[in-house]
Amino acid sequence: MNNKLHTDKLKIIPLGGLEQIGMNMTAFEYGDSIVVVDCGLAFPEDDMLGIDFVIPDVTYLTENYSKVKGFVITHGHEDHIGAIPYVMKKLNVPVYSTRLTMTLIEKKLEEHGLLQTVRRKTVHYGQSVNLGEFRIEFIKTNHSIQDACALAIYSPAGIVVHTGDFKVDYTPVFGDAIDLQRFAEIGRKGVLALMCDSTNAERPGFTMSEKTVGAAFDRIFAEHQSRRLIIATFASNVDRVQQIINSAAKYGRKVCLEGRSMVNVIGSAVELGYVDDSAHTLVELDQLQNYPPEKTVLVTTGSQGESMAALSRMAANIHKKIKIIPGDVIVFSSHPIPGNEKAVSNVINELSEIGAKVIFEDTHVSGHACQEDIKLIYALVKPEYAIPVHGERRHLMAQAQLAESLGIPKEKIWVLHTGDVLEISSESARIIGKVQTGGILVDGLGVGDVGNIVIRDRQHLAEDGIIIAVMTLEAGTNRLLAGPDIVSRGFVYVRESEDLMEELSQNATEAVERCLERDISDWSKIKAELKDRLSDFVWKRTQRRPMILPIIMEASP
Amino acid sequence: MNNKLHTDKLKIIPLGGLEQIGMNMTAFEYGDSIVVVDCGLAFPEDDMLGIDFVIPDVTYLTENYSKVKGFVITHGHEDHIGAIPYVMKKLNVPVYSTRLTMTLIEKKLEEHGLLQTVRRKTVHYGQSVNLGEFRIEFIKTNHSIQDACALAIYSPAGIVVHTGDFKVDYTPVFGDAIDLQRFAEIGRKGVLALMCDSTNAERPGFTMSEKTVGAAFDRIFAEHQSRRLIIATFASNVDRVQQIINSAAKYGRKVCLEGRSMVNVIGSAVELGYVDDSAHTLVELDQLQNYPPEKTVLVTTGSQGESMAALSRMAANIHKKIKIIPGDVIVFSSHPIPGNEKAVSNVINELSEIGAKVIFEDTHVSGHACQEDIKLIYALVKPEYAIPVHGERRHLMAQAQLAESLGIPKEKIWVLHTGDVLEISSESARIIGKVQTGGILVDGLGVGDVGNIVIRDRQHLAEDGIIIAVMTLEAGTNRLLAGPDIVSRGFVYVRESEDLMEELSQNATEAVERCLERDISDWSKIKAELKDRLSDFVWKRTQRRPMILPIIMEASP
Repeated sequence: MNNKLHTDKLKIIPLGGLEQIGMNMTAFEYGDSIVVVDCGLAFPEDDMLGIDFVIPDVTYLTENYSKVKGFVITHGHEDHIGAIPYVMKKLNVPVYSTRLTMTLIEKKLEEHGLLQTVRRKTVHYGQSVNLGEFRIEFIKTNHSIQDACALAIYSPAGIVVHTGDFKVDYTPVFGDAIDLQRFAEIGRKGVLALMCDSTNAERPGFTMSEKTVGAAFDRIFAEHQSRRLIIATFASNVDRVQQIINSAAKYGRKVCLEGRSMVNVIGSAVELGYVDDSAHTLVELDQLQNYPPEKTVLVTTGSQGESMAALSRMAANIHKKIKIIPGDVIVFSSHPIPGNEKAVSNVINELSEIGAKVIFEDTHVSGHACQEDIKLIYALVKPEYAIPVHGERRHLMAQAQLAESLGIPKEKIWVLHTGDVLEISSESARIIGKVQTGGILVDGLGVGDVGNIVIRDRQHLAEDGIIIAVMTLEAGTNRLLAGPDIVSRGFVYVRESEDLMEELSQNATEAVERCLERDISDWSKIKAELKDRLSDFVWKRTQRRPMILPIIMEASP
Repeated sequence: MNNKLHTDKLKIIPLGGLEQIGMNMTAFEYGDSIVVVDCGLAFPEDDMLGIDFVIPDVTYLTENYSKVKGFVITHGHEDHIGAIPYVMKKLNVPVYSTRLTMTLIEKKLEEHGLLQTVRRKTVHYGQSVNLGEFRIEFIKTNHSIQDACALAIYSPAGIVVHTGDFKVDYTPVFGDAIDLQRFAEIGRKGVLALMCDSTNAERPGFTMSEKTVGAAFDRIFAEHQSRRLIIATFASNVDRVQQIINSAAKYGRKVCLEGRSMVNVIGSAVELGYVDDSAHTLVELDQLQNYPPEKTVLVTTGSQGESMAALSRMAANIHKKIKIIPGDVIVFSSHPIPGNEKAVSNVINELSEIGAKVIFEDTHVSGHACQEDIKLIYALVKPEYAIPVHGERRHLMAQAQLAESLGIPKEKIWVLHTGDVLEISSESARIIGKVQTGGILVDGLGVGDVGNIVIRDRQHLAEDGIIIAVMTLEAGTNRLLAGPDIVSRGFVYVRESEDLMEELSQNATEAVERCLERDISDWSKIKAELKDRLSDFVWKRTQRRPMILPIIMEASP
């Protein structure tokens, strides 16, 4: 920090993450310095047909490129790192994170050929980095992935504590418990604002330690010693896999990882020394046949019922190497993420049908703080302002209520919207403007070439299909040379609806002939009449609204 | 029943309901008599784009029309009555049910103009109807709609007890508890098979009485006396609405029903005397303004987040007459049906954003028996065979395990598939064949005209849109008169992708010219080449797979 008079004010500008789970990204601006916390993607909503994922619009950052000093990343989940390669193509600034997080970021950069171009620095807990007017300190927390951090963001206008995604785990599987002392110390200095994880702000009580899952695994291993075990969980939950390895070692089983992301992430964690397999339980898939099934446990992706994940392929009997048989015990070490319930249930139905036993209970704990944990952080940090982050609106509002119940005055609680520019100091806080934000849709290689219009067309096509009416007119004379022909897709099964298609064709011909008789030469008018006529006819006959697409071709005489 | 020698065997043929929740329908056949239990629809799976609902294929019944003596209906939910109008158009046989159920059936028949043609008879609990070789007795049960029945199906080959959807409620809101004595009496006679509701067969314990919800309503009314209450629940849950009326009467509020189906069903129930409003709490929507908000309670549809339901319109601020304001208390007296979780959450987010308080806990109980209740029915009926019904595969398998734990031998537990023909007698049971079954998709007025091909096209269109390449060839000469022109929908935003569209057009022209140069006159070949060329180009450039549709028109010279 420099010594000039600090007349500037701190601006907090969320660029994503406040209207949904995912796409977490927040800019902090003071004077001519901007630092950005996290750079995540969001998974598409159900109505975003064909979209792979969504990344935040960073127009505000590119417009202020020279001010942007760097990105600091709280942990390695997709909703915090997934947009990095896309954003780095527009904005090449340094990226700071802890070790496992950086490993996962580097995998992404490599896929996009950016490993050489993007500057990055791995930091340790307790360490700080100076970025322009800011200093950022990385504080140890617990979460469902290792190396998660909270951030203390020191600015001339005061300190902001950002928790990232966190839980309070006094007995973590790997490493230390959350550094509550440091939260308290920083709190003592005086904290301007706390930006705290809201994901579980509706849930009363405390979040259980990850270690409780280990005890549940032990019970399951003990009870099913004569059966093969298959456990589905999140690839990124290294501690979960560690506990499966621990139980396997106790009960004399070999552990095999299956599913691309499981092999990738856990592989990296083993290399980094974040997984202890001193009992040598881990084996490759091809070695599995050397052990009796009841002496093995398969750890697989697919706990969310994702159609192409390993477990789903096993359940549908299309997995190349693993065949589920009656008596297999399948453990879902996960909760369905909202929206995935039906997909998960479908997989369970398939497994039940085969005769496998499915265990769904007691083998998952959340990675997010519940109400009492959130209160603890508030009590340690004692912020002047509360700015709930990470969650849907209901979760943010729930944390706002918690903050109020803890005595923070209502006018010092700010439930922001993405794009709000909050100018904040000890004296006052107010929203002074709005910057451009939004979700940019990624579909295959295309970034942003699918927008609202295209999505609306896809929704329309999905609902009732398309009817194309095509004709050729002679240039100059507008004489009908060919058509109108009717082609449809996704509307009705044409071979069994010949009468309907014939009537459609007659309607099209009549509509066009009537136009030409009236010497209407404006093609847009002909198209409009054709569209109206067919649309009315189809609605009356079927009560459906397919897309009607008239095409006129012009042929030289 | 007649007195001829009973050498025939009983056949049980599920025509729906065993692979999913919904579409319940089971045929019982003995000699030349068939009776059918229930006639339900299913709601479409997520991948059935544009489909309104699904009805069972009744080919087996139409092929055996002369044998079909009638339909007996267990209760008035859509998954038990929803297909009646469609099936009755093919198969006009009498329909038997209790009173409220019949009222709901009649509403459906009226919509389809079938009220005059379909014969029907209302029966009372305890009453039996003779249908060919069968006698069917209607037994009182409890469920989340009034007038629900189990059926005792007496055949020369033995008695089958079919529970319908049921719960055990010793203190129902309206009418009597389930007639456990009658289950026991019939059990004493000797029951061949029990077909029991599996919906909650995975849940341990007992299902709570509907009355417990009344106590929860009382607490909510007591705690929020200064605020308007809006309660969302299922329109068909008459007892739930009764309990809201009861609490309203106690706390001096007026009750207003909102949402078409809510007004319809509860209106009918009031007319039939199934709802007691002796305190005159019910008022019309237009009268609501005459009362202070805190003296009113609105009972509304939309508890599943359905986009067009009343609550969703209120939350989105597009309801014409009701505007949610900060401080309103919204109660979800329901659980999300699997698949609706995200839609419900979206509505909660909108309500939270407005500043309403949302209550989600303690105001719902299930209408289905849990494990201990299921065991009770088995203990009373003591069937020789167990045939779990009503549920997904996981639920059926869970009940099969329960039955086994109760001592029913594994070979006497039959988890059937839709279409199986189970021939059953005291001596033996075996599947002797398979009849045609399936789901017929209903889309608008069309029944069955949308099948797999059309659905697959809709899925393809939804994913990446469509590219149409259209051209006109001269008849005889195959000279290119016009095109190929490229038109796309749902692929990319064309105005911002001019280069891509231009290249697509060049590719199309080259492909066609190359065909014509080689004198390829077979249009299907030209189309195939064009399709391959464009498909490859698009995949390489975008990694997308839109539908590619070549159209060739013929013009006379």
